[in-house]
Amino acid sequence: MKRKPAARVIRRVRVFHLTTGEWEEDTDIALDSQGWIAAVGPGYEGEEVISGEGLIAVPGFVDAHMHLESSLMTPRQYERMVTAHGVTTAVCDPHELANVAGEAAFAYYLQAAQALKMSLVVRLASCVPATTLETSGAAVEAPCLKRWRERDPGLGLGEFMNVPGVLFQDPEVLAKLEGDPFVDGHCPMVSGEALNAYLSVGVRNDHECSSLPEAREKLRRGIQVLIREGSAARNLEALLPLMTLENSYQLAFCTDDRNPLDMEEGEHLDAMVRRAIQAGVSPLVAYRVASDSAARGMGLTDRGLVAPGRRGDILLLSDLEECRIQRVLVGGVPREELDLAEEGATFPSEEPFLHSVRCRPMTPEDFPLLPRDGRLHPVMGMADGSLLTERLSLPVDAPDVLPVAVVERHGKNGNVGRGLVRGFGLRAGALASSVGHDGHNLCVVGTSPQAMSQAVNALRESQGGFAVVDADGSCLLLPLPVAGLMSQEEGPVLANRLRKLHQAARELGCSLRDPFLQLAFLPLAVIPHLKLTDRGLVDVDAFRLLSPEEC
Amino acid sequence: MKRKPAARVIRRVRVFHLTTGEWEEDTDIALDSQGWIAAVGPGYEGEEVISGEGLIAVPGFVDAHMHLESSLMTPRQYERMVTAHGVTTAVCDPHELANVAGEAAFAYYLQAAQALKMSLVVRLASCVPATTLETSGAAVEAPCLKRWRERDPGLGLGEFMNVPGVLFQDPEVLAKLEGDPFVDGHCPMVSGEALNAYLSVGVRNDHECSSLPEAREKLRRGIQVLIREGSAARNLEALLPLMTLENSYQLAFCTDDRNPLDMEEGEHLDAMVRRAIQAGVSPLVAYRVASDSAARGMGLTDRGLVAPGRRGDILLLSDLEECRIQRVLVGGVPREELDLAEEGATFPSEEPFLHSVRCRPMTPEDFPLLPRDGRLHPVMGMADGSLLTERLSLPVDAPDVLPVAVVERHGKNGNVGRGLVRGFGLRAGALASSVGHDGHNLCVVGTSPQAMSQAVNALRESQGGFAVVDADGSCLLLPLPVAGLMSQEEGPVLANRLRKLHQAARELGCSLRDPFLQLAFLPLAVIPHLKLTDRGLVDVDAFRLLSPEEC
Repeated sequence: MKRKPAARVIRRVRVFHLTTGEWEEDTDIALDSQGWIAAVGPGYEGEEVISGEGLIAVPGFVDAHMHLESSLMTPRQYERMVTAHGVTTAVCDPHELANVAGEAAFAYYLQAAQALKMSLVVRLASCVPATTLETSGAAVEAPCLKRWRERDPGLGLGEFMNVPGVLFQDPEVLAKLEGDPFVDGHCPMVSGEALNAYLSVGVRNDHECSSLPEAREKLRRGIQVLIREGSAARNLEALLPLMTLENSYQLAFCTDDRNPLDMEEGEHLDAMVRRAIQAGVSPLVAYRVASDSAARGMGLTDRGLVAPGRRGDILLLSDLEECRIQRVLVGGVPREELDLAEEGATFPSEEPFLHSVRCRPMTPEDFPLLPRDGRLHPVMGMADGSLLTERLSLPVDAPDVLPVAVVERHGKNGNVGRGLVRGFGLRAGALASSVGHDGHNLCVVGTSPQAMSQAVNALRESQGGFAVVDADGSCLLLPLPVAGLMSQEEGPVLANRLRKLHQAARELGCSLRDPFLQLAFLPLAVIPHLKLTDRGLVDVDAFRLLSPEEC
Repeated sequence: MKRKPAARVIRRVRVFHLTTGEWEEDTDIALDSQGWIAAVGPGYEGEEVISGEGLIAVPGFVDAHMHLESSLMTPRQYERMVTAHGVTTAVCDPHELANVAGEAAFAYYLQAAQALKMSLVVRLASCVPATTLETSGAAVEAPCLKRWRERDPGLGLGEFMNVPGVLFQDPEVLAKLEGDPFVDGHCPMVSGEALNAYLSVGVRNDHECSSLPEAREKLRRGIQVLIREGSAARNLEALLPLMTLENSYQLAFCTDDRNPLDMEEGEHLDAMVRRAIQAGVSPLVAYRVASDSAARGMGLTDRGLVAPGRRGDILLLSDLEECRIQRVLVGGVPREELDLAEEGATFPSEEPFLHSVRCRPMTPEDFPLLPRDGRLHPVMGMADGSLLTERLSLPVDAPDVLPVAVVERHGKNGNVGRGLVRGFGLRAGALASSVGHDGHNLCVVGTSPQAMSQAVNALRESQGGFAVVDADGSCLLLPLPVAGLMSQEEGPVLANRLRKLHQAARELGCSLRDPFLQLAFLPLAVIPHLKLTDRGLVDVDAFRLLSPEEC
C-alpha cells in the first residue's frame, strides 16, 4: 500500500507478462523482506533499489525434472551454477542417491532445500531399485514412502519408472501409489492400451518423449510433456513442433541429467528458450513453458509469474529473443548475494555417503574377451544424444563393437554383468564410471581386459568417479567420493576436470557428447530396448534377463 | 489392458481434446466401476455400452464459484438441475447458510458432497459476516476455520470479501489466512496498489470483474478471472474479448448466484459456451474455459479432460458450436441413473435450519415515508444485471425512487435500516425477501408503508421466502423455510413459483430480470458503491455507515 518502502525494488523495468503476452512498460517490482513479490506497478519505493532500465523482467525458470546427482555437485554448488542460467526452481528426484543410501537421500535433499534460497522441490523416489533386474545399494519400499508422505503430504512421487509393475498390477508397486500422491511419470515409447493403463493410476507427466507422435499421443491422454534436454538425452529439436500457443500449458522443460561441463558452457534452460525462439517458437510460449507452465504442472502455484504474492524469482534480461540474462533474483535475493543470504543456514553433511564403493579388486580375467568365431551376439546399439538402445545382433569383431561390464559395488553379491555395445568409438583404453543408473554399480567399456580392470580398480580406490585409461595404461580420474555420484568441489572445478576427461576420451576415438552419461545409462533397464545390469543383459520390452544361450 | 470388459464403455465417439484442440475420431471411452476414465482409444469392451455414434465427447463443466443457496434448492435437487446443463463440478461457497447457521453450514455441505455423484467442492466461508456493518445470524472466526482446515487441509477459503481488512492488516482478518490456504478472491473494482496488496496474501482468482480494463489488470497481476454470469450480475458480454487462446487457462466460468427459473429456462454454463462461440470465440477456448481451465485453477487435477485417470465426467454433444448436450455422465454414472446411483447415500437433514426468521411483527409505522420537502437524499442507483450501485443524490419524489428497508431477523437486536433506491420500477405494492446478502436479514422495497409491512410479515409467518404484495393487498409467496434461503421442493416446482412471482412483480411495473436477487444484494456492503444493511446506509468505498445527517 506504499505506506513504507519495500525491502527491494526493481525500478523502471519492462515486464513481459506470461499470462497474456502483454508488455507492461516502465514499471516497478516491489519485494518484501521475505523475498516475495509484494507489488508490480509504478511508483514503489525500496530500501534497496535495483535499476531495471533497459531490462526485461520475466519469472525465474523451473526445471521440471532433474537428478541433482547428475550435476556431480552438492546442492549448494548446484544452486550457484543453475541460477546463473535463470533456474530458480528445480524438481529434484533423489533416486540416484537413494539407490546407494536409501531414505537417507530424502533427508539429505530436504535439509538442503531448507538451506537453499533457490527452490529445490524434493520428490520421494518411487522406484528404488528401478527394477528387480539389478542390484542396488538400498531399496525404498511402500511403507517407507507412506511414512514420509504422512510427515509431509505435499511430497509427491518421483518418476514412476516401473511401467510393467503398473500394467501387471504388482501389489507392491500399487501400494506405492496409495493415498493419491502427485506422481511424476516415466514411460518411454509406451502407447495405446498400455499408456492408458499406466496413466490411469494418476500419473501427471512424462519426460521421456523422443518423437513427435509419441508426445502427441501423451498430450491427448492428458498428461504434461516435459521436453527434456539433458547432457545425453536431447529431445528439444524433435519436440519443437509441440511448442504452440494451444499446447503451451501442457508442456514444460527439464534437464533430467545435466553435467557441470554443459552448464559451464552455457547449456541449460536459458539455451532451450533461446533455441526454441530461434526455431520460430513465440517468446510467450517459450518463456511460459520454461516457467509458468512448469510451475502449474507441478502444482507450484506460488511462482511462475511476475505478480504479487509470488516468489521473488525474477530474471532481468537485456534481450528477450536471445534470452540474455543480466541479473537473477532468487527468492528475492540477487544471485551474487547468495553466499551472504545463506550464511548461518544448516546444509546437510555428505559424510554418511562417503566410502560407498565396496567391490573386490578386479583382474583382467574378470573381463574375458569373447572368441572371434563369427557367432552373432546381442549388442546394445547406442546413439549419441539418446538413452534408447537398439537391440542389434552382431559378431564380436563387427566395427565399433566393444565389451562392456557392470560390476556390483555395494558389497552385496560381487556380480559382474557382461555384454557388448556399439557406439563408443573407442580405439584403445577404457572408460569407467561409478555412476550407473539407477543401481549405480560400476560400468566399464574398453578395448582390452587390462584397461577395463585398471579403470574399475581406479574407481574402487577413489571411492567412485569417472576414469579414462589410455593406450599407455595411464589413468585420468574425476573422483566422486559422495556415494560414488557427487563431488564436494565447486562447479567450475568439476567442469574443468570433466572437460579433460572428455578430451582424453576423444583422443581414444570416442566422439560422444558425454561418454560417461551414455555409459552410465547402459544399465537402466526401464529404457528400451536392450540394457546391461550387474545381473546380465536385459530385454527391456519383455522385461526379463536374457538367458546365457541368448547371449 | 483389455484383459476384461470395463464397467461402461462409450463406443465410437468423437473426442474433442481440450489439451491441443485435436479431434480423435471413432474411439471408445472406457470407465471403471468407480466411475473413473480407465482408457480412451479404440477397441474397448464394456459390461454396459453407451453408443457414441454421431456424438462428440467433451469433459463435464466446472462452475468455478457459486452459492448453492441462490438456486433455492437443496444439494440433491440442485444436482438434478445443473447436471442437465453439463455441470459436473461446482465450487460451493457456503457463506449464505453460514451467515444464518454458522459452521453447521460446512458440515451440511460436506455431507451432501459425500452423498452426491456430482462433485461439490466445498470451501470454508471466509467472511461470515461479510462486514461488521450488518447483523448476521452467526459468525465464523479464524479459530473455527483453523479447526476445519486441520481436519481437512484441502478445504480452501471461499471468496475473501473483506478487502479493507486485508489492506488495513486487521489481525483477525489476517489470522484467517494463516497456514497458506487456497483463497478465492472477491475484489470488485479494486485496482493499483490496493489490488497488489490484496493479491499479495495469496488470493488466486476473482469473479467480480465487470469491465475489460478491470479484468485485464487482474490477469496481469497473475490471478484467474472467473467470468460470471449469474441471474443478476452478468459479465460475460463485457468480458468476451478476454476469451483468446493466450488467456484461455487464465479464465473460468462461474454463476455465483443462479435462480432455478433461469436454470429451467436453459441458462447455465452450456449457454455461456454457446454464446461465447456465437460471439466468435473458438470452441477450444470456450470449452477449455468451461472445464479444464476452471479445474486447473481450482487445483482439481483429477478432472477437466477426457483422459485416463480422470473423473468420468463426460458430456456427449450432438453439436459442438451450439453446445447441444445429449447425454451427461456424472462420475461415470449416466445422469438419468442418478437416483439409483445415490440410493442408500446419507444426505444431510435440513431440520436444524428451519424456523430461522425471528423478528417481531412489523407495522406500517416501521416504514415511515420521508417528507416531500425537496431535500436531496442518498439513493442507491441500481442497474439491471449488475450488483454495483451508483451513489445518487435525489429528492424523495424523483422518478422511480422508492423506500427500501432491511429488517434484522436473527432475533439479535431488531434493527431496521432504511434508505431509498432507484431502479425497481414498482408502481404499487411491495417486494420482500428473506434472502439478503450476506446477513440474510429481511429486505423490502415498496410503494407504501402498508404494503412493506405486509410483505415482511408474510415472510415472518412463512419462515422465509420471497413475497409480492400487489396493489390490492393480496400476497403471493414462495416459501424458503430452510434458513430462509432454500426450499425442499424440486427445482421445476420452484422455477414455476418463481416465474409467477416475477410475473406478479412485472405487473407492478418491475421489469428487472430477477427482482429478488437484485433486492437481496442491496445489503451486501462489499460491493460498491452505496448499500443498505439493518444498521443503515453504507458508503462501501469509505467502508463506513452514513451518519443520520448524511441520510
